[in-house]
Amino acid sequence: MALRAGDHSQVAMNGLKEKVLTLDTMNPCVRRVEYAVRGPIVLRALELEQELRQGVKKPFTEVIRANIGDAQAMGQKPITFLRQVLALCVHPDLLNSPNFPEDAKRKAERILQACGGHSLGAYSVSSGIQLIREDVASYIERRDGGIPADPNNIYLSTGASDAILTVLKLLVAGEGPTRTGVLIPIPQYPLYSAALAELNAVQVDYYLDEERAWALDVAELRRALCQARDHCCPRALCIINPGNPTGQVQARECIEAVIRFAFEERLFLMADEVYQDNVYAEGSQFHSFKKVLTEMGPPYATQQELASFHSVSKGYMGECGFRGGYVEVVNLDAAVQQQMQKLLSVRLCPPVPGQVLLSMVVSPPAPSDPSFAQFQAERQAVLAELAAKAKLTEQVFNEAPGIRCNPVQGAMYSFPRVQLPPRAVQRAQELGLAPDMFFCMRLLEETGICVVPGSGFGQREGTYHFRMTILPPMEKLRPLLEKLSQFHAKFTREYS
Amino acid sequence: MALRAGDHSQVAMNGLKEKVLTLDTMNPCVRRVEYAVRGPIVLRALELEQELRQGVKKPFTEVIRANIGDAQAMGQKPITFLRQVLALCVHPDLLNSPNFPEDAKRKAERILQACGGHSLGAYSVSSGIQLIREDVASYIERRDGGIPADPNNIYLSTGASDAILTVLKLLVAGEGPTRTGVLIPIPQYPLYSAALAELNAVQVDYYLDEERAWALDVAELRRALCQARDHCCPRALCIINPGNPTGQVQARECIEAVIRFAFEERLFLMADEVYQDNVYAEGSQFHSFKKVLTEMGPPYATQQELASFHSVSKGYMGECGFRGGYVEVVNLDAAVQQQMQKLLSVRLCPPVPGQVLLSMVVSPPAPSDPSFAQFQAERQAVLAELAAKAKLTEQVFNEAPGIRCNPVQGAMYSFPRVQLPPRAVQRAQELGLAPDMFFCMRLLEETGICVVPGSGFGQREGTYHFRMTILPPMEKLRPLLEKLSQFHAKFTREYS
Ligand SMILES: Cc1ncc(COP(=O)(O)O)c(C=O)c1O
Ligand SMILES: Cc1ncc(COP(=O)(O)O)c(C=O)c1O
Repeated sequence: MALRAGDHSQVAMNGLKEKVLTLDTMNPCVRRVEYAVRGPIVLRALELEQELRQGVKKPFTEVIRANIGDAQAMGQKPITFLRQVLALCVHPDLLNSPNFPEDAKRKAERILQACGGHSLGAYSVSSGIQLIREDVASYIERRDGGIPADPNNIYLSTGASDAILTVLKLLVAGEGPTRTGVLIPIPQYPLYSAALAELNAVQVDYYLDEERAWALDVAELRRALCQARDHCCPRALCIINPGNPTGQVQARECIEAVIRFAFEERLFLMADEVYQDNVYAEGSQFHSFKKVLTEMGPPYATQQELASFHSVSKGYMGECGFRGGYVEVVNLDAAVQQQMQKLLSVRLCPPVPGQVLLSMVVSPPAPSDPSFAQFQAERQAVLAELAAKAKLTEQVFNEAPGIRCNPVQGAMYSFPRVQLPPRAVQRAQELGLAPDMFFCMRLLEETGICVVPGSGFGQREGTYHFRMTILPPMEKLRPLLEKLSQFHAKFTREYS
Repeated sequence: MALRAGDHSQVAMNGLKEKVLTLDTMNPCVRRVEYAVRGPIVLRALELEQELRQGVKKPFTEVIRANIGDAQAMGQKPITFLRQVLALCVHPDLLNSPNFPEDAKRKAERILQACGGHSLGAYSVSSGIQLIREDVASYIERRDGGIPADPNNIYLSTGASDAILTVLKLLVAGEGPTRTGVLIPIPQYPLYSAALAELNAVQVDYYLDEERAWALDVAELRRALCQARDHCCPRALCIINPGNPTGQVQARECIEAVIRFAFEERLFLMADEVYQDNVYAEGSQFHSFKKVLTEMGPPYATQQELASFHSVSKGYMGECGFRGGYVEVVNLDAAVQQQMQKLLSVRLCPPVPGQVLLSMVVSPPAPSDPSFAQFQAERQAVLAELAAKAKLTEQVFNEAPGIRCNPVQGAMYSFPRVQLPPRAVQRAQELGLAPDMFFCMRLLEETGICVVPGSGFGQREGTYHFRMTILPPMEKLRPLLEKLSQFHAKFTREYS
């Protein structure tokens, strides 16, 4: 089968050889990947910013990027203590400076002791610095009311994204009807659909119930699973709690029901809990899958396989650029865990500065530490403002005719439903665009507001949404929400 | 095909369900991955360290990790200027400190201006901060004697590893006899074999010529290619220059011949040039594939596809823990490049601190800057010491009977060939170990010296090698080399 041996017929008349790597010859799985959060709308936003800089006249003076959960890009200030410790670790000469608090110095020294050559510049072990894995384990124990966590089940990662991709990679196998299927929520965070496309696994959609504030319903899980078994082998169930893009926080009973379902149906559970610190609504509370699973006792506690993900990108710290995160695995087969360890070692190690930040996040200053008061004040200020913005967003949107927004109980996004007039839908179809993409593009061109169309996350056929972060600073958020509502009204009139 | 629907037969007699994820059900490609640099020998080294800490008596007092190219772990000090700038970026309050030089402050301010929210904590665009892509382009232009580089062809990455995996991922396609084959050197850096296993591509081995100082020979490339065409579709050729583990630096004529070969045979070139600053031997010089290709003129300059990789982990800086790197693509199909961009966006962005370090590496202080003298002195000291250690390693090994070591022209490793007595080979086989693994394990147990067996990198059948870094500090290196040579002599006597 010497398919290309000596095949010089690819030299065309103009003397140009065809490229080795073309759309036709490249990895077809990669071609199928989509990632809306940084898709066409964001590329257009970048262009508009450039045009503004070049002095092109627009009906707005700045582009507002409400497309991505990137707190510091929207002006949120880093938490002082985190950056002090990191600066000390990066440049240990500063340990002699009188301008850093004692507890920051102690933390930095403790971390440097645990680094190869006492430097952030050494590779760490592939699973992350052991001391920081221990810090994470203590954090989980405190979070979960004393339920033990084993540092050896914790793997530090390059953001949560990396850990999610790693676990999915382990799960993928089979061909045709035995191909691995993975249940994901719709709407979803599109890392999941992208990863499944890349890995050539089957995406199995289960719908969250918009009418019940995006609740997860086990009957719907069962429907999705049964249908999927016709054409693939469903082996994992992903849950995002608190939800992105949907902002719901799951009740404990719901989590219990999901765990029972997963156990009965033999599904590996993946709990994306990167927003565990972002819960705003009264009466809502974060329950970790690990805790609920353990408290349910055997056989769940002893057998149900679970991977839970966390990140330094979200919460009150929003340190996205450092790419820190971790996964805790529970009841993972020991031999598989060795395979995971091996797979991680190929990429050498997660970025050490991200590991350091994670260590601070999971072991913040204690009440007796000199940095405690300031740390606590900064943390509370961020979380209080996020809560206020979550409420404001819901309010303003729900005052607008044709827009309906579920409460933003947690996370960093609203995902309002918008009515689009039939003529707008028709116009979009003529242009070859999803109707909500058409709406969002027009919004961007006319107001500079950059949000992501619901079609990038998935939504029930015939419904339209967009995702907007609640991250713009308060003084910008209200005018933004109003501008957006007004644009929707104008758009609706235009196409009626 | 409801393969597992309602299949509760997996509940065994003891009430235990079989796990969802087991060695049998997991991704078979991941199972096939091997990565010797962090393999069993390193795990054993970790155990020995722990035993030493617990006071267990050993014939040595410390484990010396000469298994991985991790300069700072072996005591190399970070370059002051790099860490100053990074500390300023991490904690901008320091911009008011009198203890940082003006040029470091200017660099830091310039970078912060280019970050979202003027903070390292924001995600960057997925291809990396545009300003830093421009810095990299200027560096490449200077390095290559003025040949232009386009910032838009440069993608910053999470270490070079990440970029290499990304490019390989694009290249993988086909099934059975059309499966993508990738030519890699033997011996190789095992990231390549690991990545190809993970991606289910076909590894096509070409052997470097040990007798000619690990030279690359086009006739051998041709042999490998022809044989491979029987069972796969070879589409890419990887070169590591300077070589890991082999330390050779390729001559310009050799690079030209490789480029002609790749062009004629329609192979995508991947040039791993992470050791471009690590050239020690007199008469050796680094030539980038990009430069040679461009200077060869059309059709090579205009058509041959190339990806070239670089990293902040090696060179004189050795900042492995920060996970910074980049790939420059040349003559890549425009549509494929868009696909690559999309693929990168799924992981959001490379770690920003690594991007910052990369920026410093590619635009270091200029002669007129206050930090120039110190920067230059530190850089030269590291490189001079590495050169001396390269020479010493070669010398001491070649004085030992039964050990033969090619000159370490560049990179950070020696890869000496060792004679092992037939009885040792037989003993290893009885133990189910590769003979050089047996040798290296015994070495570790008896001396505390941790090196990696040649079988982890590949070697000609019946030959045995190990890889040892030249990174231990000078005062430790000589005794280490002597101890190792003596151990080999003793081992040889023992099995004669
Ligand atoms: C639900 C969810 N999971 C995972 C991630 C990945 O975050 P990171 O890779 O920055 O940790 C995000 C980022 O927005 C997210 O929203
Ligand atoms: C030849 C070669 N390529 C790539 C890498 C990857 O380095 P990093 O991912 O740290 O940039 C290494 C590391 O040792 C290497 O030796």
